[in-house]
Amino acid sequence: MARIDFQTDPGRYRHWKLRFDGPVAELVMDVDPDGGLFEGYELKLNSYDLGVDIELSDAVQRLRFEHPEVGAVVIRSGKEGVFCAGANIRMLGKASHGHKVNFCKFTNETRCGIEDSTANSGQFYLCAVNGPAAGGGYELAVSTDHIMLIDDRRSSVALPETPLLAVLPGTGGLTRVTDKRKVRRDLADVFCSTEEGVRGRRAVEWRLVDEAVPPSAWEKRVEERAREFAARSDRPKDAAGVVLTPLDRRFEGEDAVLYSSVRLEFDRGAGRATLTVLAPQEGPPALPEAARDAAFWPLRMARELDDAILHLRANEPELGLLSLRTEGDAASVLAHDAFLEQHKADWFIREVRHNLKRVLKRLDVTSRSMVALIEPGSCFAGTLAELAFAADRSAMFIGAREGDNREPAALTLSAMNFGAYPMANGLTRLGARFYGEPEAASRAEGRLGEALEAEEAEELGLVTYAHDETDWDDEVRIMLEERASFSPDALTGMEANLRFVGPETMETRIFGRLTAWQNWIFQRPNAVGEQGALKLYGSGVKPSFDKQRV
Amino acid sequence: MARIDFQTDPGRYRHWKLRFDGPVAELVMDVDPDGGLFEGYELKLNSYDLGVDIELSDAVQRLRFEHPEVGAVVIRSGKEGVFCAGANIRMLGKASHGHKVNFCKFTNETRCGIEDSTANSGQFYLCAVNGPAAGGGYELAVSTDHIMLIDDRRSSVALPETPLLAVLPGTGGLTRVTDKRKVRRDLADVFCSTEEGVRGRRAVEWRLVDEAVPPSAWEKRVEERAREFAARSDRPKDAAGVVLTPLDRRFEGEDAVLYSSVRLEFDRGAGRATLTVLAPQEGPPALPEAARDAAFWPLRMARELDDAILHLRANEPELGLLSLRTEGDAASVLAHDAFLEQHKADWFIREVRHNLKRVLKRLDVTSRSMVALIEPGSCFAGTLAELAFAADRSAMFIGAREGDNREPAALTLSAMNFGAYPMANGLTRLGARFYGEPEAASRAEGRLGEALEAEEAEELGLVTYAHDETDWDDEVRIMLEERASFSPDALTGMEANLRFVGPETMETRIFGRLTAWQNWIFQRPNAVGEQGALKLYGSGVKPSFDKQRV
Repeated sequence: MARIDFQTDPGRYRHWKLRFDGPVAELVMDVDPDGGLFEGYELKLNSYDLGVDIELSDAVQRLRFEHPEVGAVVIRSGKEGVFCAGANIRMLGKASHGHKVNFCKFTNETRCGIEDSTANSGQFYLCAVNGPAAGGGYELAVSTDHIMLIDDRRSSVALPETPLLAVLPGTGGLTRVTDKRKVRRDLADVFCSTEEGVRGRRAVEWRLVDEAVPPSAWEKRVEERAREFAARSDRPKDAAGVVLTPLDRRFEGEDAVLYSSVRLEFDRGAGRATLTVLAPQEGPPALPEAARDAAFWPLRMARELDDAILHLRANEPELGLLSLRTEGDAASVLAHDAFLEQHKADWFIREVRHNLKRVLKRLDVTSRSMVALIEPGSCFAGTLAELAFAADRSAMFIGAREGDNREPAALTLSAMNFGAYPMANGLTRLGARFYGEPEAASRAEGRLGEALEAEEAEELGLVTYAHDETDWDDEVRIMLEERASFSPDALTGMEANLRFVGPETMETRIFGRLTAWQNWIFQRPNAVGEQGALKLYGSGVKPSFDKQRV
Repeated sequence: MARIDFQTDPGRYRHWKLRFDGPVAELVMDVDPDGGLFEGYELKLNSYDLGVDIELSDAVQRLRFEHPEVGAVVIRSGKEGVFCAGANIRMLGKASHGHKVNFCKFTNETRCGIEDSTANSGQFYLCAVNGPAAGGGYELAVSTDHIMLIDDRRSSVALPETPLLAVLPGTGGLTRVTDKRKVRRDLADVFCSTEEGVRGRRAVEWRLVDEAVPPSAWEKRVEERAREFAARSDRPKDAAGVVLTPLDRRFEGEDAVLYSSVRLEFDRGAGRATLTVLAPQEGPPALPEAARDAAFWPLRMARELDDAILHLRANEPELGLLSLRTEGDAASVLAHDAFLEQHKADWFIREVRHNLKRVLKRLDVTSRSMVALIEPGSCFAGTLAELAFAADRSAMFIGAREGDNREPAALTLSAMNFGAYPMANGLTRLGARFYGEPEAASRAEGRLGEALEAEEAEELGLVTYAHDETDWDDEVRIMLEERASFSPDALTGMEANLRFVGPETMETRIFGRLTAWQNWIFQRPNAVGEQGALKLYGSGVKPSFDKQRV
């Protein structure tokens, strides 16, 4: 299978158009039916596949960095008579289980990203539903904070997955209907089992959309609303955007992907990948204005890390184990952290911080076992220490290596470990780690800025293991070999449960509950068997269901 | 397959023994290896199947009602050298997907029931782990509030499911380790992938148990702790227990199960069951003392309803649609509600209320589509109105039927709808219904005690549909036929998401997140395929895994 690439730019978009009018941008969906990522299906009626969503994700990201002047983004359709028909069903019918799951995960992350723009970037998303919005089409609309529906007796919103396809509206749909739109549960039940969806005033009464607008008033009202939302934005009107230049990325055959600050290396025999993040060579600039560049290390590293995670997920399904490493000068990392903290009111720095947050969240929901290896020469400090706290386990080397003049491994906390990068459940990774022992979290916070060596870090509960040179190689090898020998599925389920303790949010419910049920259904013969609804859709043959309730 | 019967009593137990010593009871697990519910496996080493858990559930229930004097219950093993080896693996390996899921659900409900005793009944559970406790054995321990582990260098606690069987510790284990025991996430990760488990002091340090006790002090310490917990109880010392006499239940061949206050009727052609709850013939007695009898309608009805739900789940998997009905005099129901409210401080009434709560929770997590039909002659009042609010949808008949002298259908709220029966997420069913519209909840509360007819109930948002006589038959028929035509799996997933809005608790995470992942894993070839770990366990052949991560 050809490599799936998550990098793109507006010049290469086939499915989306961006239009700008001062503080308002329009993100226009106009899917090229022939532009599918794979063979064998046509993307009719603005239906989408992963490729369409990769462009959407790119656009959402660029709007934040490249367009500080934009306070409101209107998502709409560029096609007459249809908003969006949702995920392409023939694509779903043909895709492997793994691809379906990955597709839904990325799509969910993109929608959460839209919500993050609205919540944290002063860039408000609206949706102008100017035609039927079905399934993923409505799920996209619901990721915005204001849904306008044209009241033309033809346009409707619908989640027809269950009646039509025997699967769930699994790209956040069910959860957002109850948790975000707060639709009454019996009405949600009716809505989610009504193929033809709900139109006009009833859609408003049921809380499915925010307003139904007569066609005569449509364009004017959309513009008004967009201006209203844009006016609430705290984004700078006159700042110059920071262009997200292409990543410095090189594929080393089948062995590695190398970026400027990230290395992703593969050991296929061991079923393992190693992800190494490199500290910046220099400290940050003196002033935030000078940082506004895609080369600014925290942004560059975050974008590279994001791409590496996505590459691993999509293109390396058999590497179930991910070692997390860092290399370089912790002082440079900490200097950047101080800079990120000092200038957090700056619009660009705010974006960088939230971007780091989103990338770390992407790591949290990546279904690979993650082990942090903290060795001499590493720089698990501040922002990079989050990698150790995101890992399922961590092992730390005691002292220096014989014949190696690098300093002993150290772990250093910075202000960034205490709130800048909340997990999907709203907790910091340290807060989640010490969920049962808040006093341990305070104790750790008391050591902020100190380079904590292995035995101390272990004593503070910051790492799982500390091993000295005598034991390190064997202990780490055995741990990794053992992990790689377990069932990948059981590990995926186990990690999905253990990583998220305590509070739940709409986001954790999407990734934890909705996704888990959808994954279950994606394996059921009633959906994907030869007689299943997803396989038979469009064939004219009615699916035949095993009626056993499980 | 032989019918699975959830009714039993201590005289028939094969696997548990109850011992009483004043305020302390011992619940001793001593599984009869030959007492499996099905052929083909031996219940060695205190491993269990559904039959063992049915007895446990019965014992937990009887301890509440029949033993008001018991303030503490110690769960322990009656076998030398082993506490409990968990769910029987050969049983799991041979069981159908549906049976595995049902088994885990019931087992989880039983463990939540133990926690409910501790939290709400003044009956505290302790666990004396006097031998290795593995998998479900440790999960049972964790459902108690105090775990003692004998520190004899042999006894350990373990969740070896992932390394050994390629499945999850799915009977609440993973969730309770993080949420209840608050084990640090990396230690939880190590614990859940260590076959041999954790012993002694380390088990205490990792928060897996509350104390490790040397063998020499063991019996004395267990007794001391039990006395301590019992001393905190507010249960009456001298009250006489209420014996849970056998249910008045009759199987009408393949067509129905009839109880004194509940009818469960089957329409196999339509894939539908109808559950009808009958109002009491008379009002409550004058004094709570006179109510203390298994014949007291709220208790009798709850036990019958519980049995009907369990029968439907275990023995009628193909009836995916459940119509909920009521019949009789709403005034009698409301009089009982008033009685339950007036005497809620009484120990027995407290038990009755919590029992009703648990039964309604059982309905909430039952994977059948539920439709309440509110017709003339019905009594959806107070406690019984909860059935309508538990349903996925409700339809109400407008006015009286021609030629039928019964009153028009009415829905009446009582105090019991506002806190007595919280769902697993802690919300009342009305609170969940009006999650997005708290003012609607207040508006409904303002009409407490009024017999609300269909149009008014619809206007208040209390029912989904109101139909008059002209439409009723067709509308209801079409709705039920349509529902029955959908994929059972998609409906199960959809309902599991839509029924639980808003807050999450350990309980909802067990039934929503952990269970969904386990159900997914229970279908994966790595667990249940011919080369899967669950199938091959004990054969000496190593499982072979598809290494793709999903």
